[in-house]
Amino acid sequence: MTEPLDLVIRGGTVATASAEFKADIGIRDGRIVTLAVELPRAKDEIDATGKLVLPGGVDAHCHFDQPTSDGSRMADDFASGPLSAAFGGTTTVIPFACQQKGQSLRAAVSDYHERANGKSVIDYAFHLIVTDPTEQVLGQELPALIRDGYSSFKIYTTYDDLKLDDRQIIEVLALAKREGALTMIHAENSDIIAWLTEALERAGDTAPRFHATARPAIAEREATHRAISLAEVVDTPILVVHVSGGEAMQQIVTARHRGTRVFAETCPQYLFLTADDLDLGGFEGAKHICSPPPRDTASQESVWRGLQDGTFQVFSSDHAPFRFDDPEGKKVGGETSGFSHVPNGIPGVETRLPLLFSEGVVKGRISLRRFVELTSTNPARLYGLMPRKGTIAIGSDADIAIWDPQKQVTITNDMLHHNVDYTPYEGRQVTGWPEIVLSRGAVVIRDGECLGNPGRGQFLECGTPDTLP
Amino acid sequence: MTEPLDLVIRGGTVATASAEFKADIGIRDGRIVTLAVELPRAKDEIDATGKLVLPGGVDAHCHFDQPTSDGSRMADDFASGPLSAAFGGTTTVIPFACQQKGQSLRAAVSDYHERANGKSVIDYAFHLIVTDPTEQVLGQELPALIRDGYSSFKIYTTYDDLKLDDRQIIEVLALAKREGALTMIHAENSDIIAWLTEALERAGDTAPRFHATARPAIAEREATHRAISLAEVVDTPILVVHVSGGEAMQQIVTARHRGTRVFAETCPQYLFLTADDLDLGGFEGAKHICSPPPRDTASQESVWRGLQDGTFQVFSSDHAPFRFDDPEGKKVGGETSGFSHVPNGIPGVETRLPLLFSEGVVKGRISLRRFVELTSTNPARLYGLMPRKGTIAIGSDADIAIWDPQKQVTITNDMLHHNVDYTPYEGRQVTGWPEIVLSRGAVVIRDGECLGNPGRGQFLECGTPDTLP
Amino acid sequence: MTEPLDLVIRGGTVATASAEFKADIGIRDGRIVTLAVELPRAKDEIDATGKLVLPGGVDAHCHFDQPTSDGSRMADDFASGPLSAAFGGTTTVIPFACQQKGQSLRAAVSDYHERANGKSVIDYAFHLIVTDPTEQVLGQELPALIRDGYSSFKIYTTYDDLKLDDRQIIEVLALAKREGALTMIHAENSDIIAWLTEALERAGDTAPRFHATARPAIAEREATHRAISLAEVVDTPILVVHVSGGEAMQQIVTARHRGTRVFAETCPQYLFLTADDLDLGGFEGAKHICSPPPRDTASQESVWRGLQDGTFQVFSSDHAPFRFDDPEGKKVGGETSGFSHVPNGIPGVETRLPLLFSEGVVKGRISLRRFVELTSTNPARLYGLMPRKGTIAIGSDADIAIWDPQKQVTITNDMLHHNVDYTPYEGRQVTGWPEIVLSRGAVVIRDGECLGNPGRGQFLECGTPDTLP
Amino acid sequence: MTEPLDLVIRGGTVATASAEFKADIGIRDGRIVTLAVELPRAKDEIDATGKLVLPGGVDAHCHFDQPTSDGSRMADDFASGPLSAAFGGTTTVIPFACQQKGQSLRAAVSDYHERANGKSVIDYAFHLIVTDPTEQVLGQELPALIRDGYSSFKIYTTYDDLKLDDRQIIEVLALAKREGALTMIHAENSDIIAWLTEALERAGDTAPRFHATARPAIAEREATHRAISLAEVVDTPILVVHVSGGEAMQQIVTARHRGTRVFAETCPQYLFLTADDLDLGGFEGAKHICSPPPRDTASQESVWRGLQDGTFQVFSSDHAPFRFDDPEGKKVGGETSGFSHVPNGIPGVETRLPLLFSEGVVKGRISLRRFVELTSTNPARLYGLMPRKGTIAIGSDADIAIWDPQKQVTITNDMLHHNVDYTPYEGRQVTGWPEIVLSRGAVVIRDGECLGNPGRGQFLECGTPDTLP
Repeated sequence: MTEPLDLVIRGGTVATASAEFKADIGIRDGRIVTLAVELPRAKDEIDATGKLVLPGGVDAHCHFDQPTSDGSRMADDFASGPLSAAFGGTTTVIPFACQQKGQSLRAAVSDYHERANGKSVIDYAFHLIVTDPTEQVLGQELPALIRDGYSSFKIYTTYDDLKLDDRQIIEVLALAKREGALTMIHAENSDIIAWLTEALERAGDTAPRFHATARPAIAEREATHRAISLAEVVDTPILVVHVSGGEAMQQIVTARHRGTRVFAETCPQYLFLTADDLDLGGFEGAKHICSPPPRDTASQESVWRGLQDGTFQVFSSDHAPFRFDDPEGKKVGGETSGFSHVPNGIPGVETRLPLLFSEGVVKGRISLRRFVELTSTNPARLYGLMPRKGTIAIGSDADIAIWDPQKQVTITNDMLHHNVDYTPYEGRQVTGWPEIVLSRGAVVIRDGECLGNPGRGQFLECGTPDTLP
Repeated sequence: MTEPLDLVIRGGTVATASAEFKADIGIRDGRIVTLAVELPRAKDEIDATGKLVLPGGVDAHCHFDQPTSDGSRMADDFASGPLSAAFGGTTTVIPFACQQKGQSLRAAVSDYHERANGKSVIDYAFHLIVTDPTEQVLGQELPALIRDGYSSFKIYTTYDDLKLDDRQIIEVLALAKREGALTMIHAENSDIIAWLTEALERAGDTAPRFHATARPAIAEREATHRAISLAEVVDTPILVVHVSGGEAMQQIVTARHRGTRVFAETCPQYLFLTADDLDLGGFEGAKHICSPPPRDTASQESVWRGLQDGTFQVFSSDHAPFRFDDPEGKKVGGETSGFSHVPNGIPGVETRLPLLFSEGVVKGRISLRRFVELTSTNPARLYGLMPRKGTIAIGSDADIAIWDPQKQVTITNDMLHHNVDYTPYEGRQVTGWPEIVLSRGAVVIRDGECLGNPGRGQFLECGTPDTLP
Repeated sequence: MTEPLDLVIRGGTVATASAEFKADIGIRDGRIVTLAVELPRAKDEIDATGKLVLPGGVDAHCHFDQPTSDGSRMADDFASGPLSAAFGGTTTVIPFACQQKGQSLRAAVSDYHERANGKSVIDYAFHLIVTDPTEQVLGQELPALIRDGYSSFKIYTTYDDLKLDDRQIIEVLALAKREGALTMIHAENSDIIAWLTEALERAGDTAPRFHATARPAIAEREATHRAISLAEVVDTPILVVHVSGGEAMQQIVTARHRGTRVFAETCPQYLFLTADDLDLGGFEGAKHICSPPPRDTASQESVWRGLQDGTFQVFSSDHAPFRFDDPEGKKVGGETSGFSHVPNGIPGVETRLPLLFSEGVVKGRISLRRFVELTSTNPARLYGLMPRKGTIAIGSDADIAIWDPQKQVTITNDMLHHNVDYTPYEGRQVTGWPEIVLSRGAVVIRDGECLGNPGRGQFLECGTPDTLP
Repeated sequence: MTEPLDLVIRGGTVATASAEFKADIGIRDGRIVTLAVELPRAKDEIDATGKLVLPGGVDAHCHFDQPTSDGSRMADDFASGPLSAAFGGTTTVIPFACQQKGQSLRAAVSDYHERANGKSVIDYAFHLIVTDPTEQVLGQELPALIRDGYSSFKIYTTYDDLKLDDRQIIEVLALAKREGALTMIHAENSDIIAWLTEALERAGDTAPRFHATARPAIAEREATHRAISLAEVVDTPILVVHVSGGEAMQQIVTARHRGTRVFAETCPQYLFLTADDLDLGGFEGAKHICSPPPRDTASQESVWRGLQDGTFQVFSSDHAPFRFDDPEGKKVGGETSGFSHVPNGIPGVETRLPLLFSEGVVKGRISLRRFVELTSTNPARLYGLMPRKGTIAIGSDADIAIWDPQKQVTITNDMLHHNVDYTPYEGRQVTGWPEIVLSRGAVVIRDGECLGNPGRGQFLECGTPDTLP
């Protein structure tokens, strides 16, 4: 250790997924090179006395600049999306590179690299979205892409332009098993939704709140059990994304107790919203249209329980940025065209961590170590980024969020940095906020200002997902 | 960091409950003061290249020098017990200070301190065993003792000289809640066991194997559910010790899903033995008499499942050292006097970690981080010893086991360091063994030799158990 | 069939637990001797056109003239109790002969026979209550009594003067197994209740509503699981009485799926009352103090579900007649003495069937055949009275209730025939009422009048309980 | 009752689904017109002393003369099939009228009436099989057919020429709800089976035993849960046919506890065969190829448990008659062409009742009343034939089987009356056999001879299924 340190974070309380301890952190060339009771002075110093020093968040489920098929446009690109993430304490994002039916996967990946290139202030990886698992895709493109660092892909059981049938799902899972990749599944039964939607529309029930009626928990439970069953036949792990409540959770827990490696993710909307938030009069509820929809207060309790008891491994935002008062946003179909024409998704990449910190850690529902595990360590581990990301350890990237655990903040959309014109959490008060955020040793956020340049973020090749129990 | 280091462990792969990474570890005054990519040379150096550097094990369930009521004598005292533990990679033991009915708890504690004084080579704490929760005990002694560092106690639902009735259990739990202590419960229904034992004895069925018949899984399941229910009434966490299989596990899992904070421990005997091991001809099966008894291969599978899926938080030895061929050991009642006269318990403090490492980690059933969590981090956390014990972090005691993950060892009793004349695992082959063991920075075990003096181990005051989800 | 019939019930719709069909019923010497499409005229005729002809109810859980230990007095004796039952369509009652601690069971039985002698208008059997299972009782009295027609007994896990400990329960169950008797269990954990009661009383929380707080669902769930476990050890069927909601039900269902023969009873109070009915201001709530207490609306839904899906086999009244405004009734301890001094129990022997008929059958929750099964056939079968009671079949006693399925009745205490000064169901409207009731072929109730003499009811010797799946 | 009786069955023990009692049965014009302690002499008399007089069986799942798409031919037509049924104590069969894709349902029904016309010795109804739910079928044909007495239909989730997709299933269920019909579902995931089959075939694993490998319990569990979920969305009852073991049962039980009206059927093959019976060397195992395949002994235990605890409502044969040593039977694809070319199905219409009677009733696993319920009353009730069929009651058809409960029979194919050249139960010994069988008052079977003419059996119009709890 003859070489001097670039930066020391001094005097803070470091927290990982397994321990909390006081330590100085020494950084050189963007990596954590030493932890110590007390480090010598370095070129740069950050005083973290009284602060929590956490691994930066890994948001493993967010959508940026993803083309849509209905004329809408995502409001966040690879500049604003990651910027907003960083302000919220997140230092790695893993958005999706989505194949269009008929398109080669490799072409999709190239397209997304172009979209991302030179824009992001923090590091990013890509999940693939596989919508067209042709022989070419399964036999050649995917194996090569997995080896190139795209080791997770998402598949859908719903949305006409995305969904796979059971046979296709099995083939994708079998490929994932052969190549050591991890499959994420959006689980809702498409035919149930279509039948209910048509019935609602025939009855003229097209207000935003009927979005929740059209996508009941049964549809989610069914597809969750089916996805698990297909994974059991293939004998490979899966991860069920954005689980909304107890019915799907029960399927996951039951499967796990029979030995299936099924991982689960949930999101802030299932803790803080309910279907009532889709019923705000006029078109207002469209702000909270996402899929699966938020359910009820009992479901919220179930999801909290699942964060506590280990049902969930990952807490992501599912940030899907559509502006509300915008003909390319929620109103793409017009205000009166009905819920089925409203783009699905809500923003949340910046508020994900503060919401969970405040309602989870500060209110004593979960420990700080569990917070770190859910929001950073586990997603890094499951998507093959450990130990580079997701923890504070020797050799890891110095992706660090320094939190003031007592800071009181009232969330308003004005203070956020996404390009969306609303936040579902407007007016909500939280305690605790990330004050300084480092990405590979560089301070990118300090005191509400961004100090990092667009494009400084690097693309991350993901290794083999670590799905060991 | 102007002061020089006492010792550097160099070049190893450090593993905690959340991450694995390459780092040098710098130790001063018995504590870990720095972790770094590369540390300068120190007075002392250990080359850990190619080795795993783990937090030393915390064995939270072991019995040393505990008086018995049947004329038997525990073969291990506070010298041999901790010594054996240390050879097996364990650096903290938490044996029991057992109150005798009529005795003041404080007196019991004093007695055990005398027994321990000047003997142990590694650090130790005490759980209390509360057998006589008088007003004096509950109102004065226990609160004071908890504040003095005895923050966990075990209670029994079986054994005439130990068991509490439901009302007493509730009172103890209420005290634990008021004072922030953690209650451990040995859960087997005493009346079921007594009735079955008498019936077996009337029928002349007294061979060792009938011990398993007399203590069926139903008895364990019943008391487990009852203990959980009493804890739910009081609304305080409990920890169910030595869970033997699926029936009790199901009670625990179900309770957890309704929001109860119930923790669970299992032991090597439930992974590696079955009731058939009590049926070896003659008196031989008495070697494997412990309570609850080992069950069957399906139970073993359940217990493995529970280690994988998070049902269990703690993996302990329940080391209870009775010599086999000894009139003060298993034969205290004579060879023909029947199973109900055989002292309960088997040795295992030294083999606990190598068995789980080999069959769990090496065979790919659990990750290394889960191994660390189960055997060290979680017991330290749950019994109020974090972050001093249970992890490798800045400020923690330098209690470290350096493992050769490839070493092949055939377990024989000859190579072990307890005073018991047998091991249940005689002849079993394992891969991986702790080669060097440090306690507070001092090498106590190296290359099969003990370098630490008896009595160097310190008594540990336990803080408030950390039972946050 | 040369002999003429005494009576024909003509033109009605007969319903049994398995079928509904139009038939005339021919009765001779108190028994059903023929069923036919059309019978010749008989001495007596009842026109049942447009009516339902059902087996008379069997109320297998009711208390008449049972001595208490607190100075209270049951308001119904063996005259008024059975009379009230008959008016409600019940033709067989099975109250309890309760052993007092220290008393011989045979003496208890003799005592109850004296109390019953010459009073009842309908037939009756006795369950025994075993409170003191001495060697004498288990070894001699009970076996003899079982053979004499007392083939079911109830045991308690609560109430100081009634409760058995686990060992005693096991012994009673073992006796039941040996002798082919059926054990009924009142399942609530006594120590939980005592501890909560004392805590509530210390806090001054003694209003009637705290009765429900003092006897939470956990206490019932615990004792239910324990009773089932003890029965599993002995390997004999049990019947859990007055199950109040989902927690205990879950234990029963789970046990049944692992092969245990556990039967379950519920009562009207768990369908129609909640704990809120104990919270009516002043002492009024004492009217609804019974144990287990009514729970909440979710529990009511669970109980309905259990009546539908087969969780429950028996629907009884648990009629326990204490007058409200009476120093020998609910006010025995005075109005201000607190819930723990209020006699437990509510009246309901007359309203049991109309309530279930109206809310169950008329509202389409259960079929008519299930109504018959729950209220008549199953209790007769389980307590060894089939085929004499509990069905309409050749050779059975002509115990028949002829119902007007459309009659609208508003329940008031004025119209009831018990000696209690209130009904919990005051003002409730029901559809359907038994208009004519026959006991062994004699019309005992017609048009709101009793035509039967006290004492015409006979004591029934119960045979072996039929507990085959 | 001035008219004389045609026939009296005298002195037997009558058993229904709710009671057993001694009675004479008087029959006139094919119907039961009286039951009595003793009836006057009639023209015809049957002495049933010492015998059990049961409602004739209703076999609600059997295939006769159903065209296939692979060149095979069912060996039993509407003569031999019902004849074989009658010899086994069954008096009503409900085979299937199967729509071919593209065919109108009405045409399918007409075709089957032609096939059946003038052949059957006992009464029969038809379930429809809906394979092509076009608007025409759903909007017009089915509603009309339901009103004409075809009130149940079966749909498939597997077999390319039969299966419906989720949307079609929903539409059929919605139709069933609107029209009050009952939907039966063959639940196995088609894509799982196809993928496994192709993989096995690629590996050369085509022996009969791989049929079981290709159709694992997971495939059945998945489709069962999916079918239930779709029914929950529509809110209408379903009946899952031929459930093979615990995994699918668990889905059914869980659904029922959340209030879903899901009924379940099992068959003798799941009690008496296992997958090992498909592994007999050479092609022999093809005799036992049916779908779902028999599983293992644990599944057999589960199915017995389900018959005991009420999981199952219906016990049918799923008689599917393919000759073994026949190029139009099991060998249609040749002996070496592999399991996927073997016609699915095994014979059993004649042995259904004796097997369950012997192993269930005689061995004490189930009561006689449950036997009657499972094999006769419940299928009649669920398929809208009560009270005409399925019980012994006034006004019911005199469809009666008189059993000798002690008769010892060794089952051989020689003694059976189907046209299949083997029975899966060759050599199995049973106790109890139906000696005399009456259909609408006429003795059709006596002493091993058929006394009824082909074509005497009538087509039965089914009414609204009775699915009330």
